[in-house]
Parts: sequence; C-alpha cells; structure tokens
Amino acid sequence: MSLLVVGSIALDTVKTPVEEHADLVGGSASYAALGASFFSPVKLVGVVGKDFPASEFDFWKSRKIDVNGVQRVDGKTFRWSGEYAWDLNTRETRSVALNVFEHFKPVLPAFYRQSDFTLLANIAPALQSHVLDQMEKPRFVVADTMDLWIETTRKDLDALLPRVDLLILNDSEARQMTKETSLIKAGRSIRKLGPRYVAIKKGEHGALLFGEDEFFSCGAYPLEDIHDPTGAGDTFAGGMAGYLAGAVKNVQFTDLRKAMIYGSVLASFTVEAFSLDRLRKLSMDEIKERYETFKLMSQFEVEI
Amino acid sequence: MSLLVVGSIALDTVKTPVEEHADLVGGSASYAALGASFFSPVKLVGVVGKDFPASEFDFWKSRKIDVNGVQRVDGKTFRWSGEYAWDLNTRETRSVALNVFEHFKPVLPAFYRQSDFTLLANIAPALQSHVLDQMEKPRFVVADTMDLWIETTRKDLDALLPRVDLLILNDSEARQMTKETSLIKAGRSIRKLGPRYVAIKKGEHGALLFGEDEFFSCGAYPLEDIHDPTGAGDTFAGGMAGYLAGAVKNVQFTDLRKAMIYGSVLASFTVEAFSLDRLRKLSMDEIKERYETFKLMSQFEVEI
Repeated sequence: MSLLVVGSIALDTVKTPVEEHADLVGGSASYAALGASFFSPVKLVGVVGKDFPASEFDFWKSRKIDVNGVQRVDGKTFRWSGEYAWDLNTRETRSVALNVFEHFKPVLPAFYRQSDFTLLANIAPALQSHVLDQMEKPRFVVADTMDLWIETTRKDLDALLPRVDLLILNDSEARQMTKETSLIKAGRSIRKLGPRYVAIKKGEHGALLFGEDEFFSCGAYPLEDIHDPTGAGDTFAGGMAGYLAGAVKNVQFTDLRKAMIYGSVLASFTVEAFSLDRLRKLSMDEIKERYETFKLMSQFEVEI
Repeated sequence: MSLLVVGSIALDTVKTPVEEHADLVGGSASYAALGASFFSPVKLVGVVGKDFPASEFDFWKSRKIDVNGVQRVDGKTFRWSGEYAWDLNTRETRSVALNVFEHFKPVLPAFYRQSDFTLLANIAPALQSHVLDQMEKPRFVVADTMDLWIETTRKDLDALLPRVDLLILNDSEARQMTKETSLIKAGRSIRKLGPRYVAIKKGEHGALLFGEDEFFSCGAYPLEDIHDPTGAGDTFAGGMAGYLAGAVKNVQFTDLRKAMIYGSVLASFTVEAFSLDRLRKLSMDEIKERYETFKLMSQFEVEI
C-alpha cells in the first residue's frame, strides 16, 4: 500500500566541525519520503519555491514518489541553516526563512485522500491536522513532532494526538512534553494523551517503543563516524511508516518492532553523508545487511 | 565453578533527593559477591574493621559466599558518603575514609588460588594485579574500574589490562580513557589496550559489549522508579561474572551476551532499594522473569 507523506521541503545550509555545505535538499518530508520509498510507494505533499531544483522532481519520480501533491509556487523555498557542536550531539539553528512555507495550506489531490497509511512528518501540528481532515479514512497515522511545537503550539498538538496511532519524538522532547525525567514514565504518559503507540528516539542510544502493555527497546547501529545528523529523525520516521505501509495490513506491536529496526537502519545511513546523499545511492541489499546486523547485535538467546 | 571476588567492603552513607541512610553495607565487593552468588559459589576477598556488623558474615555464609578471604582487623571499616542529584543520574562524593582499607594487601587463602573465574571488582588496579599475581591459573578474569583510577593510576591500570579477559566500565569512563566521543570507537580502542572483551555500561540506556569482530547492545530494564543507584555497576559486574562462572566452561561471545543480560537484570533490582536490601530478598524466579522481559523487549524477528 502507498504512504502519504506531508512535511517540509527545504534548502538547508549545514555546518559541522569539519565541513559546511549550502543549498542542500532537506526538510522533514524529503528525508521521510525517500526513506519510506524503499518499502512502499509514496504520495508526497509539500511546497517549494521557484529556486528549488527541478532535478529533484525527476529524482522523486524515478523512486515511485508521487509529486502531484507538491506545489511549486512563486517565491523562495523554505530555508534552514544550522551548526553542530564538536561532538555532533547538539546543534544550533543559525537561521530560518519560512518563505513559501509561510502560507502553505495543502489541498490534497483527490486520489491522495484514500491513502490508508499517513506520515505527518515534522511540521506545525495545525497543518498536520489540516491534512488529516482531508483524508477519507486514514487507517494508520504516524506523526513526528519537535520541541518548537511542544513549546509554542501545545494546544494544536494536544488536539492532534488522539488522532495519531504512532507518535515519534526524541528523548528530550518526551521529557519536555511530560515533565518526567524517566523516559519510561514519559513514554507511558504520552500514550495517555492519545497515541496508541509512542516511539522515543535516543540518538546514539537507540530507541524505545511503547504500546498498551508492550515495550520494545533497540540500540543504534554501531557507527564509528557520523558526518551530518540532519534528517536522521525524519528518515527514521519515514523508514518506520514506509515499512508498515509496504508490508503490513493490520498493524500489531510485533510489526512496529520491525518497523523501528528499519527506521533505525535507514537513519544510520542518512548520517553517513550530508543531505540525502547516502540515501540516494542506497540499495535494498545494504538495508537488509544492516537489518541482519541489528539481529546479531541484539539477540542473546536464540542461536545465531 | 566458583568465582573469586575481590573489592571494597564499605559502610556507606547515601543521600538521594528523597531519603538519606547511614552505615549501609556497601562497597564494590559486597554488591558484586551477592549479585554473583545467585549463579555461582563465591570466594570473597576483602577487609573490614571491628565496627562492621557480624550479621553480614552470617548472611554471606547463608548464601554460599566463602568468607575465609575476608579479614576483620583493628580499626574502622572503609566509609563512603555520597549525594545524588535530583534526577539520580549524577552524584557527588561527600567524604571518603579509607580506614582499614588504607593498608589492605590481601593474601589469598591457599584454596582460593586455584579459582578459574575471577572478578576484580572496583578497587585500585595495583591491588587488582596483586590478587591476580597470587592466582595459579586464572582462566577468565573480569575487571571493573572507575574514573579515579583512570585519572590517578593510569600506569597501574595499563599494566593490568592485558591480563584481563573482560573489562567493564561506564560510558564516561570509556570516553575518559580513550579521548573518543563515540562509544563505538572507545570500546574498540580499549580492546587494543589488552582486554579481549569490553563492556560499556550506559545506565538507563543499557550496555554495549565488544569482542574481536563481535558487537552486542542491550537496553536497560524499563524501571519507572529508582531509589538508590549505588552499587548498580558493581552488581552488574557480579551478575556477569557469576553467570559465566556458574554456567560456562569455555567463554564465548554468545555466553557474554547472556551474562550481560543477567548483569543488567541484577543491577535493575539493586536500584530499587537502598544498599543490598532488594538483592537480599531477591529470588531466582524474579531473576528469570526479568530475563524473559529482556527477551520480549529486545526481539523483533523471532516469534514471541
């Protein structure tokens, strides 16, 4: 089945302690859509300006990413610029220019509205709800969010949460949202706000998954070198949602476990290069190989 | 097979944001020996003063912990006092009084010297080496260490490392020892200093295990409430070494995986109460139950 992905499409300038690159294709939807496309056809929703490279549209089409929902309008593409600290674990936003994104209010093409699986990648919760309102009968809704929305548009976020099946956020956001120090308490208490499942990303420490009486914990792929963490979380969400849309009819906790591993695998590739560079040349064999590594590195009982 | 355990035996005063208790039985060897004793008979090596409760000797004997190697000498028992920050993740040492520990230079009883499995719990590396010198043919040596020894007695530690099969340390100590930010790089580079295997403890984020071409990652048991983290690392080491001594003849990486889970299980109980309180009343059934939970929370491929 196909996956509807809505989120930001951006041109990024990224500075790490060793490199700096400008005008990179980025944004939550770009990473999420490409990540998901390894497992499922994608219907992409977003907006770009006239400065956005036409070649990216060709690339999307070559990957079974439907672009009928991507508007190209007068003005400049959303731009973000950030700089990472020496250990790549923290980053500072240097500038944000919303540009064409400021008045973005997507209208879904008719044939998008029947999608069963939806990924509301990281954008304002009001926009996420606006997209959901247009869906006929969304069967499984994955949503990503961030500190900014928890801080500034908490009401919109709270209104969205009961409509979400799987909420994805990182450890500091989970703590921020619940005022709980313990991630175990945080994950469980976020479930009470609406989402049936909650995934908490912990960067180099892996991720946690919470269901009603179920819990799953996975490590991160053992990378020695990270080049650019930008988009890792978006790719993680795309990998999870893409796997579910592509392989699962009736989502159970056991499917979400595998989805989380695929999300982690995809994210581990993203950080190996700037922008989408590593994902663009990624093969399904490479994905399968890392998935096997995850098995090897996490099993302790079964003979392997 | 039995496990020789050497380390500190202490009387602790521990303050958390909610409670404070004084004169608690503590020390690396106390936690490690009791943790290990669930899996294997223990031969304990240490020193206490006249103020140390005789009842603890009775308790050790009731648990198949041999105390022939524990000296009771004139003077006061080693004392440590610490205070935990609000989130229990960091602590400050308020005072240390070495007392009888200052001139501790253990002489192993003759029947201790043939032990196949040895756990050098956290004490000065020179003392750890001194114990090892007296062993006839140690087959598998586990050593724990801490920031203090990395900082102040690095030469002694470096001399010990090639004699160690499994080194256990925490994430910040691994970074401190190697000057590497990445724990993956740190674990691999510590192996080059001598130990065949390296275990890095990450507290609430679980633990990592490094072998020659092997890698294992496990999460932490999902505890909502922690009462006193003191001794968690020592119990982890005791659980790992005890499981190996009790169940394994020829240690392979696959055994170390299980040992790490048992270490994590034991540590998860330790933090549920002050001092050894939770471990004292712990049953093998409870251990097995948490071991099963670890399976449930980490498997994603096998049907469960």
